[in-house]
Amino acid sequence: MKNLQQISVIGMGLLGASVTLTILRSMPSIKAVGYSHRESTRRKARQFGVATEIIDDMALSVADADIVILATPISTFSAIFKELAASFKQGCIVTDVGSTKTLPHQWAAKYLPKNVHYVGSHPIAGSEKNGVEYARDDLFFGAKCIVTKKANTDPESIAVLQNFWSTLGCSISVMSPAKHDRIFGQVSHLPHVTATALVNASDPEQIKFAGKGFVDTSRVASGPANVWSDILMANAANTSKGIDRVIKELQKLQKAINSGNQKQIGKLLEQARTKREDLINYKIKQKELM
Amino acid sequence: MKNLQQISVIGMGLLGASVTLTILRSMPSIKAVGYSHRESTRRKARQFGVATEIIDDMALSVADADIVILATPISTFSAIFKELAASFKQGCIVTDVGSTKTLPHQWAAKYLPKNVHYVGSHPIAGSEKNGVEYARDDLFFGAKCIVTKKANTDPESIAVLQNFWSTLGCSISVMSPAKHDRIFGQVSHLPHVTATALVNASDPEQIKFAGKGFVDTSRVASGPANVWSDILMANAANTSKGIDRVIKELQKLQKAINSGNQKQIGKLLEQARTKREDLINYKIKQKELM
Repeated sequence: MKNLQQISVIGMGLLGASVTLTILRSMPSIKAVGYSHRESTRRKARQFGVATEIIDDMALSVADADIVILATPISTFSAIFKELAASFKQGCIVTDVGSTKTLPHQWAAKYLPKNVHYVGSHPIAGSEKNGVEYARDDLFFGAKCIVTKKANTDPESIAVLQNFWSTLGCSISVMSPAKHDRIFGQVSHLPHVTATALVNASDPEQIKFAGKGFVDTSRVASGPANVWSDILMANAANTSKGIDRVIKELQKLQKAINSGNQKQIGKLLEQARTKREDLINYKIKQKELM
Repeated sequence: MKNLQQISVIGMGLLGASVTLTILRSMPSIKAVGYSHRESTRRKARQFGVATEIIDDMALSVADADIVILATPISTFSAIFKELAASFKQGCIVTDVGSTKTLPHQWAAKYLPKNVHYVGSHPIAGSEKNGVEYARDDLFFGAKCIVTKKANTDPESIAVLQNFWSTLGCSISVMSPAKHDRIFGQVSHLPHVTATALVNASDPEQIKFAGKGFVDTSRVASGPANVWSDILMANAANTSKGIDRVIKELQKLQKAINSGNQKQIGKLLEQARTKREDLINYKIKQKELM
């Protein structure tokens, strides 16, 4: 990380504040600057000491930064890119922590000047608890981080960001934004949609009898609606295709159930059971699950 | 539980063996008899000492019982009722631990003699670990148990079974088998179907990137396929109607996503979030969740 003197983070929610806090702890020679558009958040960020400095003005907060990280909702990225385009210093690396990557790459190409290098990042970390007061310096430890690049993305900037997220404790995969969005449409956005549909299809009186099965299957539906509507909008095509696939599988099961074809029901259940067993075994082998 | 001298359990899996083991511990004056059609299971049941006595012959095992509990797959119930019809003693109470209740009531009405009283039971307990060797005397502690009755079910037998399951540690709800199956179609069988569909709709390479969200949302799909195909067959109509409702909700979300209607996406997500929050708050109040 030589030559890096300042990293600035826009947005002091759980993720953003955990980034600056982890920089404080693991890269003490680097200045970690934070910005939030909310005065109350900036006050708390100062009070909790999550960054070297909290700056009141967004343009000023990035002016001297070698890396700028957007940790605000995805829907704000294009406006922030536009607003800050003239404020980044030459050679600055701009990234974000958004859960979808195709649109951020498009917006960066459209609004960022040529001498600023955009690379996408998606650290797979978070918590039900949001807000600067929950910032942790171990949030990224052992987490995956996807770094996304297109054919014209600056190779040196990719290397710097790989190094940066590794130092924070992440294991890195590099891929295209399109591949990222296909994968996370499947493993993250689609489960959110199925959990939401399951809950919305339920009678509130009936689900009082819910056991651990329903509670687990629906857990992600408790995520913040504004964050998730942003994500589903930003990955609309992949999510929509995923919904088609889930409906097709539901209809296969329903057809077997309606026709009393127990062999076919058993076959579909066993297919899912085996597939999930393979997944869990892989995760255990990767030490991602115990 | 006065007057009860013997309780016999058919099937020495996790549930059946945990019933006899818990009787041994909490009702020491009652003889707990176990039967399994597998010689190897009977041997293990004796070795682990899960019952007062393990009997090799199914008809003999129930001959002196005041209560007989079927703890075998639902698909075996009608054949067992038929086979044992002449072996139950007069006034015997017959129940089961099956996850659906409408068909067991129908089979009991068809095959059991008039002087034998059938009541349905569904203790909501279990574990990923199945088999007599995992029997526990605390499996039912704090669990819900649904006791099902029809208009002509013997009131005294219902009272005896309520008392029995309470002594094992369960909290009891009494309802009709039809209501039971509607509720558990919603809270248990439908989540199993959606988890199965989600996994089957997934690319095995993509889901290697799965985080906690996908893992939780799909957890129940790891249940044993033979047990669950039995359950889905036995509650086909409710499950199929539930699938219709989930598909309808998926299509609502998909329509909002495809048309870029972020307000509507947010509304549907918020509806699910609030509904699940109410559920979790209810469960915490009931001390079912911490």
